[in-house]
Amino acid sequence: MPVACKTVLASRVSAKFRDEIKVDIKERKVCPKLVGFLANDDPAAAKYAEWTSKTCAETGVAFELRKVDKQDLEEKITEANEDPDVNGIMVYYPVFGGKQDAYLQNCVSELKDVEGLCHKFVHNVYYNVRYMDEEETMKCIIPCTPLACVKILEFIGVYNPVIPLGNRLYGRTITVVNRSEIVGRPLAAMLANDGAKVYSVDVNGIQVFTRGTGIHLQAHKVEDTNLTLEQVVPQSDVVITGVPTPKYKLPSSLLKDGVIAINFSSSANFEDDIKTKASIFVPSVGKVTVAMLERNLLRLHDYQHNLVEKKD
Amino acid sequence: MPVACKTVLASRVSAKFRDEIKVDIKERKVCPKLVGFLANDDPAAAKYAEWTSKTCAETGVAFELRKVDKQDLEEKITEANEDPDVNGIMVYYPVFGGKQDAYLQNCVSELKDVEGLCHKFVHNVYYNVRYMDEEETMKCIIPCTPLACVKILEFIGVYNPVIPLGNRLYGRTITVVNRSEIVGRPLAAMLANDGAKVYSVDVNGIQVFTRGTGIHLQAHKVEDTNLTLEQVVPQSDVVITGVPTPKYKLPSSLLKDGVIAINFSSSANFEDDIKTKASIFVPSVGKVTVAMLERNLLRLHDYQHNLVEKKD
Repeated sequence: MPVACKTVLASRVSAKFRDEIKVDIKERKVCPKLVGFLANDDPAAAKYAEWTSKTCAETGVAFELRKVDKQDLEEKITEANEDPDVNGIMVYYPVFGGKQDAYLQNCVSELKDVEGLCHKFVHNVYYNVRYMDEEETMKCIIPCTPLACVKILEFIGVYNPVIPLGNRLYGRTITVVNRSEIVGRPLAAMLANDGAKVYSVDVNGIQVFTRGTGIHLQAHKVEDTNLTLEQVVPQSDVVITGVPTPKYKLPSSLLKDGVIAINFSSSANFEDDIKTKASIFVPSVGKVTVAMLERNLLRLHDYQHNLVEKKD
Repeated sequence: MPVACKTVLASRVSAKFRDEIKVDIKERKVCPKLVGFLANDDPAAAKYAEWTSKTCAETGVAFELRKVDKQDLEEKITEANEDPDVNGIMVYYPVFGGKQDAYLQNCVSELKDVEGLCHKFVHNVYYNVRYMDEEETMKCIIPCTPLACVKILEFIGVYNPVIPLGNRLYGRTITVVNRSEIVGRPLAAMLANDGAKVYSVDVNGIQVFTRGTGIHLQAHKVEDTNLTLEQVVPQSDVVITGVPTPKYKLPSSLLKDGVIAINFSSSANFEDDIKTKASIFVPSVGKVTVAMLERNLLRLHDYQHNLVEKKD
């Protein structure tokens, strides 16, 4: 039987965003500057920095990679926060790992947080708060990798545009294997906020995220379950993986025929035969993540220069 | 040889603070209310909640323990943030563990954060920022357990009152075994900010905190070292432990004669023969922590009611 799977590369999804950003920068004659701090020896971080640098050069964003000792990082972030020439700041994590990295994420000024990792932005994702200000002139910054996953899901038609905005995943069951604070948990929340039933998987167990009737009647609802991977994966229309080790492989035998498979880990989390099971396979999302980073940078640049449009 | 060690109980250190709080509440006829959220089954948390309840009853603080499902905790915190009858909020950690707990710490309103665990307060500890506002009317809230350790060190004379404020640990070498984001790291920073040389120990290695010449010329400086516990403990005038497992014991053989030994773990981290080595031994700090919690509560109560004195 011929393989019917369509492989969709991140570069294809990111092209439209990259072109929009390029035209916008050229037409408005702006030159937003992004500073990336590298304070670890992780080859995945170095690769991501390289992509970022290349994409920024193509689109007209000034990117500067600053290699710093991890003990100096907080001071260097503070300097960049206070430097009016810097419009956006990103850090290649992990630095110290654990809660000390969570602390560092909150050291980046909100108005320069292109990655959307400070508490306010992550909190707003959970509560479906779309604007930073009461006047609703400044849209919130959404963490880049979860946002990239949503843009990919839109591109490949998982979001159904026939359904009103905010409900376009209604009827979909999605498994997300990763529940980190910077990708998996906000992603599960965003998908649930858009109507999906989401199984969020990590080593501690499986939670189900659904649109609940919680705070502000807009936030999702989370419940612990005793379900296993063997039970949730076969029910899932979409499976998104982000396990940061080459050792992890999600067994293809669990996937339903015609599943949509997306991997955001820098390692291949699906088995080699994934194309015999999936209808659509997205092997990586990095290039879309970088496009979202640039989009966030342009927004923050405009907020810093009060280039926001007031609502009528 | 008779044992010359003086054991100082936390109750002795906390008595003065407890009495001050009691008198203040009575004289001003205020009734601050503290809400504690218990969302785990940790016996140490339940014990701490019990102490808190008992101490609050003695001093005139209204304490309400709310047992909640961990999946509802964030919503319940938000409700308490918005409830004008609640003056302070605390959470018995761990709930989820890891970065998700760091997220929760930032969900508590700054004006109700009696534990001092939100980013702003921890950040201010690192940078030696003493006030919440530019007018310097509202003192910052300092995380309770590190603050309790400082109060104990003052009580037992490690802070030298002959030296000017802010430098009273100059000349002291202190080892802190624990570098958690909520106790060990802020404690090491506070001690370094007051002039000590601090060896901060955790499973990832040993760092040395000293008063550096960093940001604002007030913050401490941190350097990685290749030193071992066997090298730093024998040099230390004070050894403070906080390893949350009964399995951990710091070998008494490493301690210098006449060391000051303080344990803030709920388990005994020193060996049974500690009194043959130490000049002063403080086996636990919990009661001082609760007193600091009440002191923070009273401050926040006053900030909420604008009961702050303007500086001349």
